Amino acid sequence: MKSPLLERLIDDLRVLPGVGPKSAQRMAFQLLERNRDGGLRLAETLAEAMAGIGHCRRCRNYSEHERCAVCSSSGRDRQQLCVVESPIDLSAIEQATGYRGDYFVLHGRLSAIDGRGPRELGMELLEANLDGGQVREMIIATNATVEGEATAHYLAGIARRHGINASRLAHGVPLGGELEFVDRGTLALAFGSRQSL
Amino acid sequence: MKSPLLERLIDDLRVLPGVGPKSAQRMAFQLLERNRDGGLRLAETLAEAMAGIGHCRRCRNYSEHERCAVCSSSGRDRQQLCVVESPIDLSAIEQATGYRGDYFVLHGRLSAIDGRGPRELGMELLEANLDGGQVREMIIATNATVEGEATAHYLAGIARRHGINASRLAHGVPLGGELEFVDRGTLALAFGSRQSL
Repeated sequence: MKSPLLERLIDDLRVLPGVGPKSAQRMAFQLLERNRDGGLRLAETLAEAMAGIGHCRRCRNYSEHERCAVCSSSGRDRQQLCVVESPIDLSAIEQATGYRGDYFVLHGRLSAIDGRGPRELGMELLEANLDGGQVREMIIATNATVEGEATAHYLAGIARRHGINASRLAHGVPLGGELEFVDRGTLALAFGSRQSL
Repeated sequence: MKSPLLERLIDDLRVLPGVGPKSAQRMAFQLLERNRDGGLRLAETLAEAMAGIGHCRRCRNYSEHERCAVCSSSGRDRQQLCVVESPIDLSAIEQATGYRGDYFVLHGRLSAIDGRGPRELGMELLEANLDGGQVREMIIATNATVEGEATAHYLAGIARRHGINASRLAHGVPLGGELEFVDRGTLALAFGSRQSL
């Protein structure tokens, strides 16, 4: 017998990925018991973010302004353009690599089943950006899945039409990966594209 | 390079227990990508709950009204009173047992170090409830820790002064527990309080 408002809070917390009934309950009680200010702050930021964060008009990355932080920065190399499937991929590349060029976010991949074609992925905006003539290299960083590969193929075609070099992230055995546990497809690919020392 | 509002959302999500930087990021991106409505609803409920949920005036359980759901229910047995340390313990007992009596929530346990005495735990309100004369049995369900035991001892004293039977949850080997892995203290206690078949 919980208060209806408390029940509702526990229910609504479950929109968060990875949060089931038990952890939602723990979250609700912990916030009420120890950190109501933090809870109120989260409520405010959440409302502001859900309503205010849209897509950058240049690269489709998340942004609450017309231009995202990358596009409005003066310290980025405009000759390189890295195309990713989602903003979380962009964030992973920013954190892991020293890349300082521009990005373009597809928000998905080509998928006939889900009805996502070039238009849904903003390919027209991408081509318009390339028409500007600044970009020299397109780094295609879509996922290494069947649909990601198809999307990469399509992007390579766009690059070719604009006379731009296209490159793709290297595939192979992950660092620290033991051959025994690497899946067959990756192993075959890594074997085939072995590099001379 | 994330948008400042997105950074703030990821930061603020970390007030939730068990949420580190990685899962906060995943939560923020997932809400933005797939469930903005759910995010907005969560923001609203969170704000309402943090500001609106207080303590029941009779038993100190969480409630957005003067009386909690248990205290205002007509289907509970007013002769039994179960005293717990926290609302989450109350919730666990409600879910696991068929108990249909009243509760009293201490919101803590006696602790000299943390400066929590009888006044902080609402013992005056508890005694006032007992003065009503309806309660016949006090079930003491504080945790089986040193401080929980001290609190149970104190509560038993109150019960005695009011001429009420006091009982304590049984201690012993958990169901499904293998003796090999049960801690020494529990095993010694279970051995000492063995029950005849």
